[in-house]
Parts: sequence; C-alpha cells; structure tokens
Amino acid sequence: MADLNTLANQFVQYYYNLFQTNRADLKPLYRDNSMLTFEGAQFQGVNAIIEKLTTLPFQQVAHRIATFDAQPSINNGIIVMVTGELLIDQETNAQRFSQTFQLIPDSGTYWVLNDVFRLNYG
Amino acid sequence: MADLNTLANQFVQYYYNLFQTNRADLKPLYRDNSMLTFEGAQFQGVNAIIEKLTTLPFQQVAHRIATFDAQPSINNGIIVMVTGELLIDQETNAQRFSQTFQLIPDSGTYWVLNDVFRLNYG
Repeated sequence: MADLNTLANQFVQYYYNLFQTNRADLKPLYRDNSMLTFEGAQFQGVNAIIEKLTTLPFQQVAHRIATFDAQPSINNGIIVMVTGELLIDQETNAQRFSQTFQLIPDSGTYWVLNDVFRLNYG
Repeated sequence: MADLNTLANQFVQYYYNLFQTNRADLKPLYRDNSMLTFEGAQFQGVNAIIEKLTTLPFQQVAHRIATFDAQPSINNGIIVMVTGELLIDQETNAQRFSQTFQLIPDSGTYWVLNDVFRLNYG
C-alpha cells in the first residue's frame, strides 16, 4: 500500500497544483471516456470536462488537503478519495469539499476515468 | 444515467439502513477482495471489514444523506460518492462524513469492492 499512497500523494499534489495555477493544464489527465460529476452536474469527455473546469466562476482558488485515501481498484486502477477545504478569490470563509478520482494506468502514467466533486454543506 | 442513479439510490438506502439497524447484516455486501479504509485504517476481506464495522465504539448511529453521485466505472462497476452527516448515540452534534464505494455487478446484484470512509473535520 506504500507505493499506492505515494502515487496517490503525487497525483493529489499534481492535480491541485495545476488546478490552482492553470486549470486548462489539467487537460492531459482526462480522456474521451472520462467523466466528471461537479456538484451534481455531469460532464463526459476531456473537452466538456475542461470547458467546465476552466469556466468555473472564480479566478483563484486555494485548496487545503485534509485527507486522501487510496485503494487498488480493477485492472490496476486506483481509487482516491480526497477531503479538504478550498478558498475562492477574496473570500475568507473556506468551504469543505470531497472529491473522488479513479485513476487508470497507461504507459507509466495515470489518467482520470472518474472524477466526482462535492462541496460539503452543513 | 437514470438507471445508475436509481441503482445508487437503492444501494445507499439499503447500506445505511443496514448500518443503522444491524451492522453485521452488511456482510453479504463484501467479499474476500473487498477493501475498507476507515478513517485511514485499512481492512481487507469480508471478515476483517465486518469485524471493524461491528466493533465501532457506538451502539446507535443515524445517517442523514446530503448527496450521492454515481458514475459508471470499469467492467460495469459503479462508483458512488456519498456526503452527509451522522449522529452517534446520545450526541447532539452531527459529524459530517464522506464515503466512496465501488460496486461490482454479479448475478443481478452488486457487491462492494472499494469502501473509503472519512469524517470531515473543520
């Protein structure tokens, strides 16, 4: 499980760093059969997903990762569940979020088949 | 996606109802290659998972499901991410939680390959 946690940690750092600096740079992580469910809205395919991510109505976002948990999945995939907080633009109240990824290996790297994001309201 | 959401809804209602009434009755949902990560602790196999779930240090728990999102996964599996709150025994402060399942079809029903649970602290 050590390797899996290392991989998941690398992915989480990489993903949220790109998300914070330039969301369009997340494009290579998704493919045509990738799925994103963002606050209940469903998007399929790299283009629809990147359009959604790059048109979210904020300029800046900072994530604080509280936890991430990784498990092996089918066909050498990896399930990662992340919980944490995010802070948008000039807001001072952090919002909690949960996000689950399923990562699929290919040629020494991983791409995102499943991506589910939710803010956690009270 | 309608069928998927219906299936996920049925699973979520079934799972948390069993969890609340008799956690030992969750046993048929898990198999020997099932994995549970519970607050960062890892358990593999139906027996280890059920032992963990049935020895959690509370008698009663009530879940309030805030959201659940389902996506198709590999080999007709289903990924379900749940967010909500739970209330333990006589406590009056609900705790937020996030839980991700990967469900695998077999003979007209589904079993749990992956189960990741986290409380969401501030």
